[in-house]
Amino acid sequence: MDYKYLNAINGPEDVKKIPEDKLPELAAEIREALFNRLTKIGGHFGPNFGIVEMAIALHYVFESPKDQLVFDVAHQSYPHKMLTGRAKAYTDDEHFGDVGGFTNPAESEHDMFYIGHTSTSVSLATGLAQGRDVTGKSGNVIAIIGDGSLSGGEALEGLDYAGEMNTNLIIVVNDNEQSIAENHGGLYKNLASLRESGGKCETNLFRSMGLDYRYVEEGNDVSALVKAFREVKDIDHPVVVHVHTQKGKGYERAEKNRENWHWFPPFDRETGEPLNKWGGESYNSIFADHILERLESDKSIVVVTAAVPGAVGLGREVRTKMGKNYVDVGIAEEQATAMCSGIAKNGGKPIFATNATFAQRIYDQMTQDVSLNGSAVTLHLSSASIFGMGDATHIGISAIGMFSNIPGLVYMCPTGKEEYLAMLDHSIDQNDHPVVLAVPCDGVNHTAYPVCTDFDGVKYQVCEKGEDVAILALGDFFNLGRKAAEYIGEKTGRKVTLINPRFATGLDEKTLEGLLADHRTIVTLEDGILDGGFGQKVASFYGDKDVRVFNYGFERKFYDGVNVKEVMEERRLTPELIYEDIM
Amino acid sequence: MDYKYLNAINGPEDVKKIPEDKLPELAAEIREALFNRLTKIGGHFGPNFGIVEMAIALHYVFESPKDQLVFDVAHQSYPHKMLTGRAKAYTDDEHFGDVGGFTNPAESEHDMFYIGHTSTSVSLATGLAQGRDVTGKSGNVIAIIGDGSLSGGEALEGLDYAGEMNTNLIIVVNDNEQSIAENHGGLYKNLASLRESGGKCETNLFRSMGLDYRYVEEGNDVSALVKAFREVKDIDHPVVVHVHTQKGKGYERAEKNRENWHWFPPFDRETGEPLNKWGGESYNSIFADHILERLESDKSIVVVTAAVPGAVGLGREVRTKMGKNYVDVGIAEEQATAMCSGIAKNGGKPIFATNATFAQRIYDQMTQDVSLNGSAVTLHLSSASIFGMGDATHIGISAIGMFSNIPGLVYMCPTGKEEYLAMLDHSIDQNDHPVVLAVPCDGVNHTAYPVCTDFDGVKYQVCEKGEDVAILALGDFFNLGRKAAEYIGEKTGRKVTLINPRFATGLDEKTLEGLLADHRTIVTLEDGILDGGFGQKVASFYGDKDVRVFNYGFERKFYDGVNVKEVMEERRLTPELIYEDIM
Repeated sequence: MDYKYLNAINGPEDVKKIPEDKLPELAAEIREALFNRLTKIGGHFGPNFGIVEMAIALHYVFESPKDQLVFDVAHQSYPHKMLTGRAKAYTDDEHFGDVGGFTNPAESEHDMFYIGHTSTSVSLATGLAQGRDVTGKSGNVIAIIGDGSLSGGEALEGLDYAGEMNTNLIIVVNDNEQSIAENHGGLYKNLASLRESGGKCETNLFRSMGLDYRYVEEGNDVSALVKAFREVKDIDHPVVVHVHTQKGKGYERAEKNRENWHWFPPFDRETGEPLNKWGGESYNSIFADHILERLESDKSIVVVTAAVPGAVGLGREVRTKMGKNYVDVGIAEEQATAMCSGIAKNGGKPIFATNATFAQRIYDQMTQDVSLNGSAVTLHLSSASIFGMGDATHIGISAIGMFSNIPGLVYMCPTGKEEYLAMLDHSIDQNDHPVVLAVPCDGVNHTAYPVCTDFDGVKYQVCEKGEDVAILALGDFFNLGRKAAEYIGEKTGRKVTLINPRFATGLDEKTLEGLLADHRTIVTLEDGILDGGFGQKVASFYGDKDVRVFNYGFERKFYDGVNVKEVMEERRLTPELIYEDIM
Repeated sequence: MDYKYLNAINGPEDVKKIPEDKLPELAAEIREALFNRLTKIGGHFGPNFGIVEMAIALHYVFESPKDQLVFDVAHQSYPHKMLTGRAKAYTDDEHFGDVGGFTNPAESEHDMFYIGHTSTSVSLATGLAQGRDVTGKSGNVIAIIGDGSLSGGEALEGLDYAGEMNTNLIIVVNDNEQSIAENHGGLYKNLASLRESGGKCETNLFRSMGLDYRYVEEGNDVSALVKAFREVKDIDHPVVVHVHTQKGKGYERAEKNRENWHWFPPFDRETGEPLNKWGGESYNSIFADHILERLESDKSIVVVTAAVPGAVGLGREVRTKMGKNYVDVGIAEEQATAMCSGIAKNGGKPIFATNATFAQRIYDQMTQDVSLNGSAVTLHLSSASIFGMGDATHIGISAIGMFSNIPGLVYMCPTGKEEYLAMLDHSIDQNDHPVVLAVPCDGVNHTAYPVCTDFDGVKYQVCEKGEDVAILALGDFFNLGRKAAEYIGEKTGRKVTLINPRFATGLDEKTLEGLLADHRTIVTLEDGILDGGFGQKVASFYGDKDVRVFNYGFERKFYDGVNVKEVMEERRLTPELIYEDIM
């Protein structure tokens, strides 16, 4: 493709040089560039194909970075990146690595924040506006929020607060009628009414929050958008510009099946088929199959998701089979969690299935609504691991430090499939306390030792009884611990004790005490940041005892673009390096 | 007072025996009982005086506990408690201790949850409704939420989700036109319009969330309420009953000055004056004075609160003086935090002042919006201490474990006034990272040693250099550490090393390493739960070294009704017991 216009764009000032009637040609080039990257390395397809014209119009009308654009979620920022000097990352295969999937100030002065979760843009933008005003700066502040993000508490708090401000703030609602799966919550009925009435229906969420409001029906028509943005530029109060766009615009398959094409792996443009077929057993399929089986005889189980059912294995077919026993609350993790507490209170068996990275939204609800109230909620946590998503916004290695220190809950770390199922069943069947269940991430392995099904109190499983050195290898790192035990055993000629701690909360003091008789070295392994984690508790227990403790895990820092092998070596998480350390 | 009706009430069934025209007499008795308790031991005055008639009407119409009442915040539950068998806790001084300040299932089957924060009731109620339905139970679920609570993200998520439900759920909005201080956010303009129009104005927040809606103007008229509740009883879909009440109803001073009388200490009923005058210096006044002074020369500082300005020392007069540099976002902690990130991004110097207990709401925002983005936000944390509020819903001893493990932020623990001010100034002036500043709670003490103003990296202050035993005493427990050092020194005849660690994040490895030369015993003291805290990090550091480490702090459990002296002794937090342990 000859990127006639795109190749000439080194920044927003070059967008403005293009005659307005040629902007649709630029849009076509941007879509080609999106195809070039996404067919080859995958990415967020639907959101970016839908926002092409809006990104062009924003940069045509406003003067970034003096005017500040805040993209919600920021996975809808690819066209924005192309218009701000980063087009090569899409048009030139050798430059794919130049950009990440989200806005990132380290990449460009046109990216205000590094953000990968939804629902943050309005609050952040109110702050930019406030900061602009107290420091005597000028310029427009523009938040671009998707309809799916509107149901999140932070977004709703932000809209409400914005409704009280008396300064420039433009909130563009990119309404593509879809979050990731279908939208949920009553407010989406109102968005539909607003679309149907051309923005004129009297019930209006935004006006009820005190906000001025405009509607643009033709959200994929650059000229309509340029006109709308010109009208609100330099406005002296907060205003919502509600824009109706088509998710996946420009690729029929994506327009029709919006959930599937929200994110898509590398694919063949002609057939729409992924280049690599993934298959076989995963914890997602194990979870879905197991719950469906249990639902046959127990209708009190309720599986709850917050807008990412696909990410936890609940595709459309599974959801349909679950029927009333499945609830998607939309992007509303706080609601999901507190609701689960209520369900448990009335004898239901709630399971909130989400990714570790999104669970940081529910620290409060897990503490007060759930744990303080002793509600038997299962928090089914995926990707709480270095083996999960590897960017700083999505990496799940904070989960142990986040949840295991909250009073009243039990944090369980299975080491393989059979133990995972036993823990899941136990969590569902007990009525005493919340459980955080960290789903294994290092592929589906069979549990290496007979599953200990005694979950009454914190009891470790001593898998191999040796002497001198004991390895406590938690959850996903159990296999590493097993290999390290074998390696050290071979090297020293003395059998190493191998323990599956099973729990990240509390300590099995009896077992720990027992090790003192014939062990001088204790090694802890955990798939998480050390600070606030499992190993430090073990170290504290042994603090005044005559034994050496080595804690292995990750540093308290934002890991980004993780190469697992490199990080594991850097943190000395290999049998050889552990052996070297303790000798 | 002769509590003619109240004394005959042992449960909701007795309320129903009273003729409807006599209910105002019951209301008068309840107010007398409130006076009896609140003049003597203080409590939440305004909310409970305003909700008397509503509580009566709820129990007159519904059949608790089959019908389930969920009180938001639950500090508005005193009349409900009187009507469910707990009247003596208000009428009889000897029984004041029978009840706590919030609903608590341990007290009564009529209390659904133990909750002390706002904005949770709707989400919890959606769960009760869901649990009722999947388990085949029946009955009404009724959430009673105050207008001030509506701006919280969890409440808004809950309303939105409720708008999609197809089952019985009654949401009573107790609109007394006031949260704690004045209400904030655009939605309150809508509540005002709804009140003014008798519920008829077309812009309607609740309808825009997909909810059915009714309005009751006479919220302190029992008959009007009984009628309204009868109409919605057994309704087959979610409905909002918006009720206009008078906060502080029945006591003129409280009706007029609603902020002051939200919570009130013991007072003289005739004069309205508190029985005990508190005065003198507090960290609240130190904070307010210092910020006002700094604002004289620096207009980029912005102090943000979330509906509890009084609790952090920002009375009306101070707020007025701060002018535009003060922002109350209402109950919307997520908004407050993300907004601060935006303010910092544009060169402002934001300080979010709140209590540790409410800070559990912003774990997500502190992680992603603030720390990941390196925003120089000051989180000014009050009551992060055993010396703060002592009930399970409000105790602040989880703060270190909650925040100190988040990457990218610095958690500072001053030991006295001068150090607090130095740390506050440093936090405001630096532009590199967020700071959590744990305000001392054990009274205002002068800093015992010259303040170390080097905040570049984690450096501990060695206050006394001794040998053999070193005490690392963090923040509020520095004075305890000092006493312990003296006591142990006297007993052993060898001077004890006393260290002010200053930081709960990271370790000063150089100083810790240096102690190895001439120390065999390390003691850590922290005013927080040990799990995930400071001491365990020190223990981990010394894990493979030849030194004993003793970590002192609290257990991972929900402490409730704390008697500080007892808890300190139970956790061996006295010089004598520490000496006993390490010898």
